[in-house]
Amino acid sequence: MRTILLTIEYDGTAYSGWQRQPNGLAVQQVIEEALCQLLGQNTELRSSGRTDAGVHASGMAAAFKTSANLPLKAFVEGTNHFLPIDIAILNAIEVPSGFKPISDALAKHYRYTILASAIRSPLRRLHAWHIRENLDVNAMQKAAVLFVGHHNFAAFRASNCSAKTTVRRIDSIEITREGDSIIIDVVGGGFLKNMVRVMTGTLVDIGRGRFEPEYIQQLLQNGDRKQAGVTAPACGLCLREVYYPQYLGEVLISPPEVF
Amino acid sequence: MRTILLTIEYDGTAYSGWQRQPNGLAVQQVIEEALCQLLGQNTELRSSGRTDAGVHASGMAAAFKTSANLPLKAFVEGTNHFLPIDIAILNAIEVPSGFKPISDALAKHYRYTILASAIRSPLRRLHAWHIRENLDVNAMQKAAVLFVGHHNFAAFRASNCSAKTTVRRIDSIEITREGDSIIIDVVGGGFLKNMVRVMTGTLVDIGRGRFEPEYIQQLLQNGDRKQAGVTAPACGLCLREVYYPQYLGEVLISPPEVF
Repeated sequence: MRTILLTIEYDGTAYSGWQRQPNGLAVQQVIEEALCQLLGQNTELRSSGRTDAGVHASGMAAAFKTSANLPLKAFVEGTNHFLPIDIAILNAIEVPSGFKPISDALAKHYRYTILASAIRSPLRRLHAWHIRENLDVNAMQKAAVLFVGHHNFAAFRASNCSAKTTVRRIDSIEITREGDSIIIDVVGGGFLKNMVRVMTGTLVDIGRGRFEPEYIQQLLQNGDRKQAGVTAPACGLCLREVYYPQYLGEVLISPPEVF
Repeated sequence: MRTILLTIEYDGTAYSGWQRQPNGLAVQQVIEEALCQLLGQNTELRSSGRTDAGVHASGMAAAFKTSANLPLKAFVEGTNHFLPIDIAILNAIEVPSGFKPISDALAKHYRYTILASAIRSPLRRLHAWHIRENLDVNAMQKAAVLFVGHHNFAAFRASNCSAKTTVRRIDSIEITREGDSIIIDVVGGGFLKNMVRVMTGTLVDIGRGRFEPEYIQQLLQNGDRKQAGVTAPACGLCLREVYYPQYLGEVLISPPEVF
């Protein structure tokens, strides 16, 4: 059996998230069905993690086992042939049989995009959170650095998050303004449910002047979800890359500079 | 009566183009109906020109007459309240009563976006023409400058284009690569039906090495549509700005540098 690791892009607008579920169509299910059509047998995908309903990805990672003796290119182009236009396989590599998509991941890069503009944007409506006020990006940057390191992110997760531990590692978080877009790039070792979205909601409150940047420290200490900001809308979030170590063989993508 | 000039953004994916027509829903119709709801009377929009089905705009210009004594901000926010999420009014200014949206326009800026990549992109599928081969951008640039000036664009229009004259003025055309995107920015005095799309299709043929850059000169001389390239897909095209002279009063947008 070979283990094949796929890099996947999808527009999450039409899906109920990555993970297969009884109600609603999941990205995982659509790709598994495409692989089944390509390979002629049921195929189970194991991903680096889940994404919520409506969240996008330009670099989701997911692996499957197969005995098919196809060239790697065929796993890309053959699967894409059976996929709808809002999902595509970007790359396929072969990895060692013991590969574990979740625990082998060194880090993930998420990007959250905010449109700070008095008027909404029809062309960016599916890929940004529209906020009518201008935001103090300097204050947001000052707050963001307080997330870097190992911290208890209990205040920054969905109320129904079932993770056993809430300590996570953030490697870097950068906030940049490009015209009327404000882009939040977060790289970290792992993320709780809705973590980037609650971090974003809280950073936006700071950008609005509702909290001081130092408020982040308080939330990391008290772990109280109710005192943090809103969960930012799913449409602004995109999983950009999952970083795996080079020992996997072929380098999937270059590791982040923080390592 | 006041004359109000609107700047409009829309995602053209769901529409049969700008202009009202018997079959299919046009952007013009949707905005006229929103203005009717806001103002309580039928309102006719006159635009700087049409866009084809599926073409986008981030700076369409269209004017209407009204006796409503509303502040300009209300024409923006009030109309947006009645518009769907894929259309928005960005700005409203008052212009002299003799204002003519087509003939007063000094120039228009269109942008055509190509995704040159072996794999299609789910996230950019609605706003770029996907081409699997890489393109020779230097050759395309060399060809593009030959469009600048007054020329007979008879070879670069829809076969059913009914314009009486086919001489048009191109002020500038710039081609830039941003990652795997190739962006064609065209500023000109006016455009025939499908003109930017046929220009793009021909530039892509040159980027593929099918024609030499100098072939553009030949097409501008012989005016033979059949010898030019394909009509590039609508989804890659966006009307970015319409430039009006400053004598209109308030400056809508700064005039292009070519003037």
